[in-house]
Amino acid sequence: MNAFTPAGLPLEWSELDDQAVKTIKALAADAVEKTGNGHPGTAISLAPAAYLLFQKFLRHDPSDALWVGRDRFVLSAGHSSLTLYLQLFLSGYGLELKDIESLRTWGSLTPGHPEYGHTNGVEITTGPLGQGLASAVGMAFASRRERGLYDPNAAAGESPFDHTIWTIAGDGDLQEGVTSEASSLAGHQKLGNLVVIYDQNHISIEDDTNVSFSEDVLARYEAYGWHVQRVDWTNGGTGYGEDVHALAGALEAARAETGKPSIIALRTVIGWPSPTKQNTGKIHGSAMGADEIRGLKVELGLDPEASFAISDEVLAHARKVGDRGAELRSRWNTAFEAWQDANPSGAALLERLSTRTLPEGWTDALPTFEPGKDSSTRAASGKVLGALAPVLPELWGGSADLAESNNTTMEGEPSFIPGEHSTKAWTGNEYGRTLHFGIREHAMGAILNGIVLHGGTRAYGGTFLVFSDYMRPAVRLAALMQIPTTFVWTHDSIGLGEDGPTHQPVEHLAALRAIPGLDVVRPADANEVAAAWRTILGHTDRPAGIVLTRQNVPTFPRGRDGFADASGVAKGAYVLVDGAEDGSQPDVILLGTGSEVQLAVQAREQLAADGIKARVVSVPSREWFDEQDADYRESVLPAAVKARVSVEAGVAQGWRELVGDAGRIVSLEHFGASADFKTLYREFGITADAVAAAARESLAAVRG
Amino acid sequence: MNAFTPAGLPLEWSELDDQAVKTIKALAADAVEKTGNGHPGTAISLAPAAYLLFQKFLRHDPSDALWVGRDRFVLSAGHSSLTLYLQLFLSGYGLELKDIESLRTWGSLTPGHPEYGHTNGVEITTGPLGQGLASAVGMAFASRRERGLYDPNAAAGESPFDHTIWTIAGDGDLQEGVTSEASSLAGHQKLGNLVVIYDQNHISIEDDTNVSFSEDVLARYEAYGWHVQRVDWTNGGTGYGEDVHALAGALEAARAETGKPSIIALRTVIGWPSPTKQNTGKIHGSAMGADEIRGLKVELGLDPEASFAISDEVLAHARKVGDRGAELRSRWNTAFEAWQDANPSGAALLERLSTRTLPEGWTDALPTFEPGKDSSTRAASGKVLGALAPVLPELWGGSADLAESNNTTMEGEPSFIPGEHSTKAWTGNEYGRTLHFGIREHAMGAILNGIVLHGGTRAYGGTFLVFSDYMRPAVRLAALMQIPTTFVWTHDSIGLGEDGPTHQPVEHLAALRAIPGLDVVRPADANEVAAAWRTILGHTDRPAGIVLTRQNVPTFPRGRDGFADASGVAKGAYVLVDGAEDGSQPDVILLGTGSEVQLAVQAREQLAADGIKARVVSVPSREWFDEQDADYRESVLPAAVKARVSVEAGVAQGWRELVGDAGRIVSLEHFGASADFKTLYREFGITADAVAAAARESLAAVRG
Repeated sequence: MNAFTPAGLPLEWSELDDQAVKTIKALAADAVEKTGNGHPGTAISLAPAAYLLFQKFLRHDPSDALWVGRDRFVLSAGHSSLTLYLQLFLSGYGLELKDIESLRTWGSLTPGHPEYGHTNGVEITTGPLGQGLASAVGMAFASRRERGLYDPNAAAGESPFDHTIWTIAGDGDLQEGVTSEASSLAGHQKLGNLVVIYDQNHISIEDDTNVSFSEDVLARYEAYGWHVQRVDWTNGGTGYGEDVHALAGALEAARAETGKPSIIALRTVIGWPSPTKQNTGKIHGSAMGADEIRGLKVELGLDPEASFAISDEVLAHARKVGDRGAELRSRWNTAFEAWQDANPSGAALLERLSTRTLPEGWTDALPTFEPGKDSSTRAASGKVLGALAPVLPELWGGSADLAESNNTTMEGEPSFIPGEHSTKAWTGNEYGRTLHFGIREHAMGAILNGIVLHGGTRAYGGTFLVFSDYMRPAVRLAALMQIPTTFVWTHDSIGLGEDGPTHQPVEHLAALRAIPGLDVVRPADANEVAAAWRTILGHTDRPAGIVLTRQNVPTFPRGRDGFADASGVAKGAYVLVDGAEDGSQPDVILLGTGSEVQLAVQAREQLAADGIKARVVSVPSREWFDEQDADYRESVLPAAVKARVSVEAGVAQGWRELVGDAGRIVSLEHFGASADFKTLYREFGITADAVAAAARESLAAVRG
Repeated sequence: MNAFTPAGLPLEWSELDDQAVKTIKALAADAVEKTGNGHPGTAISLAPAAYLLFQKFLRHDPSDALWVGRDRFVLSAGHSSLTLYLQLFLSGYGLELKDIESLRTWGSLTPGHPEYGHTNGVEITTGPLGQGLASAVGMAFASRRERGLYDPNAAAGESPFDHTIWTIAGDGDLQEGVTSEASSLAGHQKLGNLVVIYDQNHISIEDDTNVSFSEDVLARYEAYGWHVQRVDWTNGGTGYGEDVHALAGALEAARAETGKPSIIALRTVIGWPSPTKQNTGKIHGSAMGADEIRGLKVELGLDPEASFAISDEVLAHARKVGDRGAELRSRWNTAFEAWQDANPSGAALLERLSTRTLPEGWTDALPTFEPGKDSSTRAASGKVLGALAPVLPELWGGSADLAESNNTTMEGEPSFIPGEHSTKAWTGNEYGRTLHFGIREHAMGAILNGIVLHGGTRAYGGTFLVFSDYMRPAVRLAALMQIPTTFVWTHDSIGLGEDGPTHQPVEHLAALRAIPGLDVVRPADANEVAAAWRTILGHTDRPAGIVLTRQNVPTFPRGRDGFADASGVAKGAYVLVDGAEDGSQPDVILLGTGSEVQLAVQAREQLAADGIKARVVSVPSREWFDEQDADYRESVLPAAVKARVSVEAGVAQGWRELVGDAGRIVSLEHFGASADFKTLYREFGITADAVAAAARESLAAVRG
């Protein structure tokens, strides 16, 4: 608690607050009824909790949803979007009654699930269960890291960078594995800045959750190292009462606990006091019907015939939270300005990071790799990250227990862990930079998103490419939210060798390229790695996955022997080495990505021996190439050259688009096997010989 | 415990058993050293536990790895494949020393991770962490269901169908979310037939797990409702001793607990007694080096210069487990034969299910749907399942909390839950048929795999198509293992409407088709649904995902107005309605899947009005079509007809292969939005008009 945190206790709660809560319940029912579908139940029963939070606890300023000093609010139970929309409306974030009326309709500000970047005040897109709570853990990470960057020596609670991440989660969130992973990490990390209200209403779509969910949730959270509390509005089943004072006490205790994350199991009855549908699955995700809504309004003492009704008095009362915000902010500003005066370089850094502007000259730090020495692209990536560490303090990251394999550690940077969790191998502190996710890929993805959403810093996280499957829902959300999360995926093909088919990605490049808005980047050599990181970090509006080899690949002689420099990486595909030095049209174009580009280069030489001019095009990113204008694309892949071959150690899916009807695709249409990687490439026919043979076939097909 | 279960206690443990354990440790080190890479550490430290289990506790018959009465063993920590291979070798499953010597090499029986169907005695492919333990839960489900089918009235432990699922899991497994989900369900289901040995060695790839994993695991499992025990071979750090008696006691207590699943946290030191690398990350996943191996052998009292050494005496001693198996089996046979005599129809069913043979005439039960009435394909699927319920007792399934939405409930079938977990909406018993996974899609996938791997029954599970992402690692393993798990994925496009982009699959069809060996089946109408289930259930060698609409689609007039019957579904693609009745070559081919086939049908009519003959090809399964011979493929897609259009409400990726250079693809290259589905189709241009326009474009392109 500090001077610029709202005083939640003693709770001042008036008749108008009661009226506001009742109004919210009725509006939630009306909104779903008008659209004909949606989720009224939780929005009705959580109305007092959400209102209490936004009015009395959340440190926010509705006039500036991006205030750096704000608490964050995450509605993990995203299907209950009205829970958030109605608070945004009542708090004055710009949503008005007409927006509530247009819930879930084309073009409205109130889509079915909250969407980041679409509605002012929405901190994160939620709906896929578990993602919200897991990303809230990431926000809490980011908040602590931010404090470490700017104000590490302030007393606890006294820094303008101290704030709380508040989350509302439901029974569904608490069942999802990603929540378990993230919650275990949150306890491990002692995230005292995280508070979760668990709406324990025991109802999900299949009605009473007892059919599938009977564990002791709070005991589990205690085992994770959380601070746990219980607030039971059913009073043990003896009679329902929305005891906001009890909840306020728990919220205050949760905020006061700075050594552990907090969870409050709030036992509610979904849809209360809806007369016949409360406490049933029917009110979870369907419109209630006119009769039931009338009954609800009668129970609430509201006019049963009025729809979308809110009294001016209630609205004006609720919107006073804006005055509260302005006052808190003014006090915060005093502290913040004092900090700025005392920390001019920190203030400049904050300004830069707030706008995601990269520092002048940062690319000078990028290493150049000399030809003649083979290197895995993962090793090159590790060197790039190490070189960027001093110039890009916003960048941090780690791995899901594969640090050495993923080359994700910036050398010498301390771990981000409570000091007591330092080990022989890793020394850290609460403000460290190297992230350790454990064997929890899914939570890693969601936590990375949370870090990026928090703002300021940006984070990357590594695992094997095959395990991108474990984190795919988080990757999709990053793409949907258009946020610059970076995924580092190494061991990117059968080239990982002996671990065999369970660990060898085959379909993953295609499967990831299928996600709209995700950049999949597979550099061919060390210098492409540096160029790839340069382009990825230059983007602020989208996530990227950088896909790297385990095995060594040649470092091409850039600028010599006909090889282009690596700047073409930014364009997604470029002529690495042409068929003829005179710039004449090639006979055939060989397209490759990553470790297979070398096969195209070798095949080009074989073909040259037969007088066939083969152009090698390196294609590090299909997405970046698709963004180029037609002229550039034509310059790389002239329409007149229909003899084409692609080579990639994965499924062919998607390559016909670039090679055309006469083209040939050297690919892998089945799972891998356990053996050394050279044997696998040979046995599975991913070789320079195969590329050259395919080129001849394609040439023959063109000749007809 | 019954007459045909090995008596683990009092434990008889001889000097030869000690020698066998030492031999295993040395062989594990030697095998990894010879290959140059692999995971020796856990195979060394778990040698006594695995040997104890296989020799004294596991009910198995090495001469018949498929004995229906066997216990199941799951090595969830699949990277420690030697832990299993060495027991298979010592027990006499057919692996010999030469196989151990060829670890992780091309064509060997001992790949990097255990592979189902590849090595005799391997019950499941493991390696992706968490999958093994979660599938073990599925095996325990299947075992209970099997007992319910055949011998429900036997006293506990007295049925030949009572057996135990034994699992070895590591720190990695215990961190993965899928394990949390499955473990919560296992506790809920009171799976007394499941025992997990948790190898708590506190080391993973990033060395000491304290850097990321400090929760109280056993307290968490108590919260799930498990029976928990601890066996500490470090004696609180005072001195390491491989106390097999203590472990045997715990195993016996775990087996005796029939009301709860059991977990034994076995505190080990990884690699013990390797002199310098024990208890470090270095011994987890790398060859140890010659010096270290010599040191290990010296510690063990073995000849430091001998490699791959096993005395005849030790091997003969260990292989006596075969005699034990034969004896147990003989006693089991007596009980089994008595059961057969008393239950002829059950015996016939068991025989049929053991071979996955479908009953004669089963397809007669499949419903036919009359045209003229629109139906969602999910509703049709529900009717098919209901109709199959009485004729296919092997079939069971459920949903991840979306039963009504996925239409996965066979009407009137009881839930598979302990009776005390019956709710108002669902009544069940321990032998029920309707599965409730809760909001745990990933565990659902792995549990379904476990059910199928157990043998006998086969299971399906449903969620929304967009959430196939949550279960993707399990789907991949089903494909890799070539087992007939069935995934039901409904709400398969923007057609789900108002829930918006978080819930609307766009990339999922492409992403799932990318998985080798998975059949992705998207029927166009109710009759295609019945035909799809028919073909899916006819396969025993691969998983399938059936992809279904939320919204209604027309039921085509089969056999009338030029419409083909639905039998072509089995071929993956077929001419639904041709361009001209006279069988002449069409001008253009319109390919569609699922709910978009109706758009192709409408476009065909528009084009006909202009004298353009358009053939409509329904493509329910790309994979099935790819399997057809060239003649059939040519008959559906004549090479001469180059004007083609595909239409699917998802990304274009993959369709160029079928439509060719001159073709056009009507697709969706971005995320969806929250609105009613008709608006979305219209605004995003997935319409009959768009298909007709694309057909004209393609015709123009062909004309050049």
